[in-house]
Amino acid sequence: MTSTDLRIDRDRLIRRLEDLGAIGAIDGTTGCARLALTDDDRDGRDLVRTWMCDLGLDISIDGIGNVVATMPGFDPAIAPVMTGSHIDTVATGGRYDGNLGVLAGLEVIETVIASGVELSRPLAVGWFTDEEGARFAPDMLGSLVYVGGMPLEEALEIEDRNGIGVGDELDRIGYRGAAPTPGRVPHAFVELHIEQGPVLEDEGITIGVVEGVQGISWTEVTLTGQSCHAGTTPMRLRHDPGVVAADVSLFVRSLTRDIGGSQVATVGALTLHPNLVNVVPSTAVMTVDLRNTDESVLQQAETRFRGHLAQAAEAEGVGVDTRMLARFEPVVFDARVVDVVEAAARDAGLSTKRMPSGAGHDAQMFARVCPTAMIFTPSVNGISHNVTEYTEPDDIESGANVLLDVMLRLVEMEFA
Amino acid sequence: MTSTDLRIDRDRLIRRLEDLGAIGAIDGTTGCARLALTDDDRDGRDLVRTWMCDLGLDISIDGIGNVVATMPGFDPAIAPVMTGSHIDTVATGGRYDGNLGVLAGLEVIETVIASGVELSRPLAVGWFTDEEGARFAPDMLGSLVYVGGMPLEEALEIEDRNGIGVGDELDRIGYRGAAPTPGRVPHAFVELHIEQGPVLEDEGITIGVVEGVQGISWTEVTLTGQSCHAGTTPMRLRHDPGVVAADVSLFVRSLTRDIGGSQVATVGALTLHPNLVNVVPSTAVMTVDLRNTDESVLQQAETRFRGHLAQAAEAEGVGVDTRMLARFEPVVFDARVVDVVEAAARDAGLSTKRMPSGAGHDAQMFARVCPTAMIFTPSVNGISHNVTEYTEPDDIESGANVLLDVMLRLVEMEFA
Repeated sequence: MTSTDLRIDRDRLIRRLEDLGAIGAIDGTTGCARLALTDDDRDGRDLVRTWMCDLGLDISIDGIGNVVATMPGFDPAIAPVMTGSHIDTVATGGRYDGNLGVLAGLEVIETVIASGVELSRPLAVGWFTDEEGARFAPDMLGSLVYVGGMPLEEALEIEDRNGIGVGDELDRIGYRGAAPTPGRVPHAFVELHIEQGPVLEDEGITIGVVEGVQGISWTEVTLTGQSCHAGTTPMRLRHDPGVVAADVSLFVRSLTRDIGGSQVATVGALTLHPNLVNVVPSTAVMTVDLRNTDESVLQQAETRFRGHLAQAAEAEGVGVDTRMLARFEPVVFDARVVDVVEAAARDAGLSTKRMPSGAGHDAQMFARVCPTAMIFTPSVNGISHNVTEYTEPDDIESGANVLLDVMLRLVEMEFA
Repeated sequence: MTSTDLRIDRDRLIRRLEDLGAIGAIDGTTGCARLALTDDDRDGRDLVRTWMCDLGLDISIDGIGNVVATMPGFDPAIAPVMTGSHIDTVATGGRYDGNLGVLAGLEVIETVIASGVELSRPLAVGWFTDEEGARFAPDMLGSLVYVGGMPLEEALEIEDRNGIGVGDELDRIGYRGAAPTPGRVPHAFVELHIEQGPVLEDEGITIGVVEGVQGISWTEVTLTGQSCHAGTTPMRLRHDPGVVAADVSLFVRSLTRDIGGSQVATVGALTLHPNLVNVVPSTAVMTVDLRNTDESVLQQAETRFRGHLAQAAEAEGVGVDTRMLARFEPVVFDARVVDVVEAAARDAGLSTKRMPSGAGHDAQMFARVCPTAMIFTPSVNGISHNVTEYTEPDDIESGANVLLDVMLRLVEMEFA
């Protein structure tokens, strides 16, 4: 048997997704809630760790609670080909986001071990703490610390909304480990993840070949006008922040048409005060989310948005205050790993599409330290971060088999 | 002494405004909270009733708690010239809205009685229950019942948000009276009220000569799209109800420019769900408040708004549901009474401006049964329904003196 004949065990993988999804399950749905470092997260961790132990893997837990399991019996000087993702979820999440990447990685390793195929490098699978950022900001915290992007001490002091710290919670659930951070640099890193968007389904494609992650620009805009009576105040005497917010909403939508390509723009949050039918609002607080794969184009979009905002606010006599909520430059994945993903999928007879990721993932942290790329599988109706999140078993199987093939190919590759 | 030499006592009027404003006072402000039929409303009623008693007026209380005080000693067949307003307030109200009209009416009557001037008709001053509608819907409830616009039985069964009924609360505070409804039809009705808008102040005018009340059209629009991830969903696959809401907001603003005149349009409330920075909203619920003094123009505005809404929603692939929250036709005051208000103000050397009322008032109910008009005094910064509501003592004095003169002139007029 050669390594290219290997196939993962679809039923075992799906059963594990179901078993892990049963922890923190949301009644009456297939969704689940395992916020980072809660009791439910601990129970999920314990379950996956048991599976890793059963396989005889070397398990290391670092100071931020990242758990990495490596095939045993290799010279410690030989860096592993690593995969992984996260098993924490948002408050009303699905059972695929993150979990698929971890359990498919485990499935790949189990398949390779069971086959008896000899490798020149070990495979490793990890999960990284608080990827969602739904409890502790920033998101992708564990992988950020793993690659040395944040000192451990700083990360341990981060608190949730109730003032409970990361370090204390790690101690409480028994996941503050001894492995050092930054962690061991892998030979290469590849992450399988659900798309969390509608593109693959819309175009009937099975495998997304992820070339990078969009740059993200989040701005909170506070517009301050003059509250007044909707009946007694003539239009010429109004300073209505809601009208400026509407103007900016339409402008950023029009920006996406002008700029085209990967440019997206979203006004997801908008709050008027006092928010009454017969009162012109005194304030409007809105968020503007701009994303592009090209940093210079993203900067262009930001500049045009800010220019229009200033102009619209001045025309209405409304004050403007802006606050940057988040700003990440685009991440470009390693072209060689991207090519391997595409080749493996095509060799398996699967349809592929090169695409950016619109969301952040642990892989983008690993891209800082080693050759990295990602594999996407379709999300039904493009839905994620929702209890109705779903990916077809056929797509899960295809994605995991592509992950298997890619990891085996990466074992053989040398990156200069 | 002739009736045209009479002047109200400014200090007494201001003192009474302060004394009444002390009941339900909001700490640290000059605002007050006397929601209809609460203990504070009762205490306010008791205080004003004491002043009426001290003047020896005939006091009648009807089944909805309206209180009318009439100069004694007249043939009951002779209809009074009536003034009045309300003494209930919104939850964070000022001490002028409504209260000024009632206490200035009392001041007018006290001035006339003290002067010994003989009148051919009595003067009367009333306050009408739940004008604000802040506790029981609809607003202007007391005056509506007074003029026969709603059967008393129906009004008594109206409940507040806690399920407490108007009738029970009237019994509890001792203000369910025996006087019949509909009430006695006055010879004429005139109401003094603060403008609650910025026009008089902006133009440096002392007396607003109110020709009528704008028609009001309130629509709640529920837009239903598809929630999705702000990063992973291409623009072409979005159905964003927030974008439609923004489009409609700007359209109704542009309508006011197109239509001009008294047309105003306000989007006061807009709520996105789930209202998160990185999620395209699933729903947007917005209100559209349109007002015009001309019913046919208001209907035009409604038609154009609805047409644009349907078109914008269809273009975005978003569902629309609309609900009429309120619809009142414009009220046109009696031209003869309007002329009297203007003449009285001009004869007193005061600047005047003919204007509509953008807000609803008890006077519009009386306009259904007798010749009616209103007098406005300026509101500092146009602010009302707010603890910072304020009207300058000079303007209060001018307004009350105009009210005095108008009432005396109405006594002499015959309306065919």
